Amino acid sequence: MKVFVIGVGLIGGSFAIDIKAAFNEAEIYGIDNSEDNLEKALSLGIIDEKSTIDDVDKADVIITAIPVDATVKILPEILEKINDECLVFDVGSTKEKLCSSLSNHPNRRNYLAAHPIAGTEFSGPQAAIANLYRGKTNIICEVEKTAFKLQERAMEIFTRLGMRIRYMDPASHDKHIAYVSHLSHISSFMLGKTVIEKEKNERDIFDMAGSGFASTVRLAKSSPAMWTPIFKHNKENVIETLEEYIANLIQFKELIEEGDFSKIYKEMEDTNHIKTILKGIS
Amino acid sequence: MKVFVIGVGLIGGSFAIDIKAAFNEAEIYGIDNSEDNLEKALSLGIIDEKSTIDDVDKADVIITAIPVDATVKILPEILEKINDECLVFDVGSTKEKLCSSLSNHPNRRNYLAAHPIAGTEFSGPQAAIANLYRGKTNIICEVEKTAFKLQERAMEIFTRLGMRIRYMDPASHDKHIAYVSHLSHISSFMLGKTVIEKEKNERDIFDMAGSGFASTVRLAKSSPAMWTPIFKHNKENVIETLEEYIANLIQFKELIEEGDFSKIYKEMEDTNHIKTILKGIS
Repeated sequence: MKVFVIGVGLIGGSFAIDIKAAFNEAEIYGIDNSEDNLEKALSLGIIDEKSTIDDVDKADVIITAIPVDATVKILPEILEKINDECLVFDVGSTKEKLCSSLSNHPNRRNYLAAHPIAGTEFSGPQAAIANLYRGKTNIICEVEKTAFKLQERAMEIFTRLGMRIRYMDPASHDKHIAYVSHLSHISSFMLGKTVIEKEKNERDIFDMAGSGFASTVRLAKSSPAMWTPIFKHNKENVIETLEEYIANLIQFKELIEEGDFSKIYKEMEDTNHIKTILKGIS
Repeated sequence: MKVFVIGVGLIGGSFAIDIKAAFNEAEIYGIDNSEDNLEKALSLGIIDEKSTIDDVDKADVIITAIPVDATVKILPEILEKINDECLVFDVGSTKEKLCSSLSNHPNRRNYLAAHPIAGTEFSGPQAAIANLYRGKTNIICEVEKTAFKLQERAMEIFTRLGMRIRYMDPASHDKHIAYVSHLSHISSFMLGKTVIEKEKNERDIFDMAGSGFASTVRLAKSSPAMWTPIFKHNKENVIETLEEYIANLIQFKELIEEGDFSKIYKEMEDTNHIKTILKGIS
C-alpha cells in the first residue's frame, strides 16, 4: 500500500508513523513545500521516501495535512492526477469550503472529508508522535459521496489507528467545531496577548504564573500558518462564537463592578457542569 | 512541632501531607467548618487529630487555607488566641486586603503573608496530594513585618517543601496575579459557559472536543467558594484585566470581520512568544 502524505508535520507525520506501524505493507512517501521538513521526516524515519505531486498517480492512499487554504487549492489538482482506485482524504479543521469546492469534481468519489480531533500545540515533523489518534474522534463529512470501496479502506485505516468515527454534515461540523475548538484557540491567544502586553517589561512576573495559567494559554503556542486559514474559512461561525464569548465576559465584568457576588458564584457553579461533560477527555 | 491546618482541602491538606513527611516531629491538627471534610482528612491520614479554634494556643505553626474572605475574618481572632512563639501564615490568592486589615494588630509580627502558586482544579481533602509545592513559586508579602525567628521557621518549612521564594509588596502582588492567574480563571469559566449554553441540547457535540478545549477550559472546574471571594477582594485589578482582555478579543473579531488575515497571522505569531516565557511551567 503506497501512502502519500502531503505535509509531513505534526498531523501528517503522526499519521505516517501510525500507518507504518499498523500496516506491514505500507510504504510512506512524503511531499512537503519545505525541503527541510522532508529531510527531517526522512531522517526521523517518518517517511520512507521523498516524493512530489507529479508522482501521486502511484498512490493507493493520499493524506493532505496542510493548512486548509492550501488544501482547497491542491485537492482538485491531486484528484486530477490520481489513479481510479486511490483514496484521498484531508484532515483539516474546516469542512464546508472544502466539500463545496469539490462537489462537482469528476473524481469526487475518490475523496473523503475527515477531521481527526487530535493534535498538540507543537508543529513540524519533530512534533509527530505515535498513537496521537488513539481514542480520538474522527469526524467524517458527506461520507455518501465517497466510493464505497474507498470508504472501507479509510475506515480500515482509522480503525487500526484507534479512532472513534462520527458522521456529520459539513455545515454542522464547522458550526460546532467553532465552539469546541476554534473559540478556545482565540481565547487562549488573546489571553497570552493581554498578559504579554501588560507584563512585557517585568519578566519576573512570569515566575508568578502557575500550571493553571500554562494550561489556559497552552493553545497560544499553536501555528499561525495553520490557524489563520481556519479562521478565514470559518469566518461567520467564528465571529458568532466570539460575539457570545465577549458578551459573557462583559456580563461577568459588570457583575463584578456591581458587586453582585452571589450571581458570580452561581455563574461559576453552573459552569462547573463542564466537569461532567469533559469526563474522558484529557 | 504542633501544626494547625485551618481548612483541610486541596491546599491545606497538601501542606499537611508534605509537612508531615518533611518534619518527623510534626503533629498535624485539622480545623474545618465541615465535619465531613475533617473526617475524610483524618481517615486519609492527612491530619493526626481534629481540633477547634479554641485550641490554637497550643500551636507552633498555623496555616489558614480557607477562602480569602473567611481568612480576613478569622485571622484577627487567631492572632489574639495564639502563644507568643506561634507562626501564622495564610496561603490566599489576594494579599492587599489581608495585609491592610492586620497592619495594626498587636500580634502582626506572628503573621506571614504567603501565596504559594500551586493547586489543581480539584478541591476537598481527597484532592490533597504530596509534593504539590515542589518547584513552585511562593510569594511572600511584607516579610519585614514578621518576627525574624518566625520568618526563619516559615522559610525552613517552605524550603523543605521545595518552594522557590519571591518577595513582593501586597499591591504589586494583587495587580500582577490578576493577570497571570485571576484572568485565566475568568477566561476559562466564560469559555465553558459559552460552549455549554450553545450546545446544551446537543450533548454529542462534546465528542468533538479535543485536548485543546479540555486544557483551555480546565480552570472552569475550580471551586466557586474559593474564587468568588478572590474576585471580590481583587475587584479593581480584575476589572482592569478583563477590560484589556475584552478589548483584545473585540479587536481580533474586527480583524476577522474586515478580513485582515495578515494582521491576524501577525497577532498570533507575536503571541507565540509565550512559548519562551512559559518554559519550565507545566
